[in-house]
Amino acid sequence: MDAQALWARYTRQLYSNEDLGLTLDPSRMDLDEAWLEGMKPSLARAFEAMEALEGGAIANPDEGRKVGHYWLRDPSRAPDPETREAIEGTLKAIQQFVGDVRDGTVAPEGGETFSQVLVVGIGGSALGPQFVAHALGSAEDPMRPFFVDNTDPDGMDKVLGAIARGEGLERTLTVVISKSGGTKETRNGMLEVAQAYGRLGLSFARHAVAVTGDGSELDRHAKKEGWITTFPMWDWVGGRTSELSAVGLLPAALQGIDITAMLDGARAMDTETRKGSLAENPAAWLALAWHHAGGGKGGRDMVLLPYKDRLELFSRYLQQLVMESLGKERDLQGNVVHQGIAVYGNKGSTDQHAYVQQLRDGVHNFFVTFLEVLRDREGPSLEVDPGVTAGDYLYGFLEGTRRALYESGRQSVTITVREVSPRVVGMLIALYERAVGLYASLVGINAYHQPGVEAGKKAAGAVIALQARALAALRAEGGAWRTPAELADKCGDADVETVYRILRHASANGDHGVDGEATLTPARARFRAR
Amino acid sequence: MDAQALWARYTRQLYSNEDLGLTLDPSRMDLDEAWLEGMKPSLARAFEAMEALEGGAIANPDEGRKVGHYWLRDPSRAPDPETREAIEGTLKAIQQFVGDVRDGTVAPEGGETFSQVLVVGIGGSALGPQFVAHALGSAEDPMRPFFVDNTDPDGMDKVLGAIARGEGLERTLTVVISKSGGTKETRNGMLEVAQAYGRLGLSFARHAVAVTGDGSELDRHAKKEGWITTFPMWDWVGGRTSELSAVGLLPAALQGIDITAMLDGARAMDTETRKGSLAENPAAWLALAWHHAGGGKGGRDMVLLPYKDRLELFSRYLQQLVMESLGKERDLQGNVVHQGIAVYGNKGSTDQHAYVQQLRDGVHNFFVTFLEVLRDREGPSLEVDPGVTAGDYLYGFLEGTRRALYESGRQSVTITVREVSPRVVGMLIALYERAVGLYASLVGINAYHQPGVEAGKKAAGAVIALQARALAALRAEGGAWRTPAELADKCGDADVETVYRILRHASANGDHGVDGEATLTPARARFRAR
Repeated sequence: MDAQALWARYTRQLYSNEDLGLTLDPSRMDLDEAWLEGMKPSLARAFEAMEALEGGAIANPDEGRKVGHYWLRDPSRAPDPETREAIEGTLKAIQQFVGDVRDGTVAPEGGETFSQVLVVGIGGSALGPQFVAHALGSAEDPMRPFFVDNTDPDGMDKVLGAIARGEGLERTLTVVISKSGGTKETRNGMLEVAQAYGRLGLSFARHAVAVTGDGSELDRHAKKEGWITTFPMWDWVGGRTSELSAVGLLPAALQGIDITAMLDGARAMDTETRKGSLAENPAAWLALAWHHAGGGKGGRDMVLLPYKDRLELFSRYLQQLVMESLGKERDLQGNVVHQGIAVYGNKGSTDQHAYVQQLRDGVHNFFVTFLEVLRDREGPSLEVDPGVTAGDYLYGFLEGTRRALYESGRQSVTITVREVSPRVVGMLIALYERAVGLYASLVGINAYHQPGVEAGKKAAGAVIALQARALAALRAEGGAWRTPAELADKCGDADVETVYRILRHASANGDHGVDGEATLTPARARFRAR
Repeated sequence: MDAQALWARYTRQLYSNEDLGLTLDPSRMDLDEAWLEGMKPSLARAFEAMEALEGGAIANPDEGRKVGHYWLRDPSRAPDPETREAIEGTLKAIQQFVGDVRDGTVAPEGGETFSQVLVVGIGGSALGPQFVAHALGSAEDPMRPFFVDNTDPDGMDKVLGAIARGEGLERTLTVVISKSGGTKETRNGMLEVAQAYGRLGLSFARHAVAVTGDGSELDRHAKKEGWITTFPMWDWVGGRTSELSAVGLLPAALQGIDITAMLDGARAMDTETRKGSLAENPAAWLALAWHHAGGGKGGRDMVLLPYKDRLELFSRYLQQLVMESLGKERDLQGNVVHQGIAVYGNKGSTDQHAYVQQLRDGVHNFFVTFLEVLRDREGPSLEVDPGVTAGDYLYGFLEGTRRALYESGRQSVTITVREVSPRVVGMLIALYERAVGLYASLVGINAYHQPGVEAGKKAAGAVIALQARALAALRAEGGAWRTPAELADKCGDADVETVYRILRHASANGDHGVDGEATLTPARARFRAR
């Protein structure tokens, strides 16, 4: 296709909205008109399904749950007054609480004000807050954010070390976020952080806030211990779409981010992406582009390249939103389909120096989403060459890469926004939420459950249970050396490999009193209780 | 396969080395003995090619370059005394320099000592230093590291803001790293950072060090301006294998990391991975596992899941090492092959909450590499349940996920190390460097060039050049409003789309004096010079 034809297709297909300050360019996805025409009936059904969902239908049939993250930014759309009041009341409570923190009404045990916030959460309770903190934070924020998002003891020590080097745990408000209240990583992080406050002679409860479902294990724990306060989560908000609930709004507001503008942006995008015509609906363009790229089967990975450092964590946020929503074994009829789209990427032009070599020349198993931000920075820029700024280069690298990839037959979508503001971040979140919902309808799957994650949790629970048995069996041997096979036998014919690997890990740490010999060599490994 | 058969295969295939403190378990990749036997001749040829390369053969035929990153950790293997002396002399110079920084012999202009280090680099000049800084750093490091790894003006402002909030630019040593000395992103970062020192009335030269090729543009610039010193890069070290040259060793040593131990680890791993028998060579196991997973065509993505927060950036480091090395259009005979392996992942168990749903249930287009670290932390751990630590859970989640994935037919390799130490980091780098080299031989490609990245850079250069013409054409119109098509015409029949997009970006920033109207709507957009 020559430049003139490309320009014609570009202008014909470009979604553009001056009010939102956003364009979406699908022209380099090679979506021809006949294919688009053929997709119209499926797309119409997807719009209908979305309308039913937003109206409060049970959109997650397996779990019998409504799907209401759209109501968060427009409570007037909630299906009943109680839900509306819950949303509005929570937003007010967050703003009131943040005001209290700022003016010292809510203050650390030792006086002064809270100047740091530590979020303890994982998955949907961390990825959104991390993305937003990075995208919208600055050195001048009233509270500096930290995250414990795993059950890695050394990782927790490292975060606590950074907090100490900052303004100290004594000026840090900890926000524990768990929708179910039973996520082990978060529970472990909470216990470790509470211990760290305790080591400083501080009451954890007087520095702690929870965001969790009403009546959950965490909710009861927080109330029993007298934490500062708790904020609710609802079963009609999935973890991966919870950024605009208290999960994301509370940490963002504490950091000093304008959450009202985030909600406004999401609401404005929802209004656009409700429209039932492709030309007017950027989420529909995205969903169709994904479908075309991967044949409706996830045949191509989604490489996300925001040319803006602040958006570096967007792909990690979208990894969850897209992969957990779309990565499904069965469709709504129960057929085995093994759906999904893999998502990766960090930022441009940095990633050009990592893997554009492969994108241009190598295995053709992806399409790219370029994310362009028109405003380079606050204030004027240095000329790095006569008449050229560093930001001109950033744009030039995006444009050059988009072009070079297309020349070698690699497809891309380009989303352009004016700046990275709270409103734009709200828009981007809402855009992808809707695109995921529409795509799920196109391929006929439930985007709102995650049945596959239970197997790993159950298997992990079995490992933890077997650990107790293996350690007890070892201790019963009174300090004698035993092989993995001998111990597996004493555990009631347990799996030798798992017993070996459990004891190898236990013997590398002092906590369980296990000695090991040749622990890396299964044929010679022996263990004993000290 | 039942547990007993799995255990038998596990013990039979496990690579285990007590001295290195490392095991590599390929047993969940389903590499059957007949297939392994069939690969032996190819593997033998790959070992021979590697031996020739290490002996100083021209292993990068397109660029006529030797490939010598193995010599960096064992200079006695260098092909001539000059190269050996260059390696040994540079290591001594780094250690001397770091000593001088510590004792204040090399000090900031305003006195005191340097307490922060800012690395300006991109790609191979940033990914290794970032990975190592994150893997081995702590709150007690003598110098805190920062990175400018892009040409994003706002991103630079954010890093400079964090530096100011820390101990200030006045106590920050800037290390500019560019092998060629001509990388635009790095040059732009350098100019912006120099301006920031200037704004504080500080001489940039007195706070700056370069790592670059002898006689490069950056080398000449640094010498002309009288920078503190420069360290060399050599053309026989590729950017993506440069972590154990001055590129990685200088920032690591400044941060307080034991670089001798890193080199020792890499040398020890090199010794192992030179062995010409699969059973004794963990890099050969990796290369075969990759080949089997993707049919020697990159048919499956490599998902890297280190269950350790410190190793979170390892996958980003490997994205470059693997994808830039293997993502090639042609094989060594010139046949079009479109090779490569896509790499992504962050850390476990965090990523379980993002996309294990898709890995277990969804599109089967990947294999997993689990990275297990046996030691949980320094010192004892809290019991989060009776007899169970947070680290036991971390291990349990790895084990449970490995098992659940295998049950649904998803394959994995598991690498286990005792701890994350400088020695282990050196080992891991060397392990993957060798695996990439062996895999490249197996599929018959040159792993040491990157012909595909030039196209994007050239296209970016053309955009920057067109920008100058478009702005000049606009200014020649004396403030009249012009459409993109009119301006493209005045630029000598330039591509309208690019002219439009250039002016859209220019009008969003004050630097070029361009006004725009309806800039997001190509059909109505107009621009004028102010």
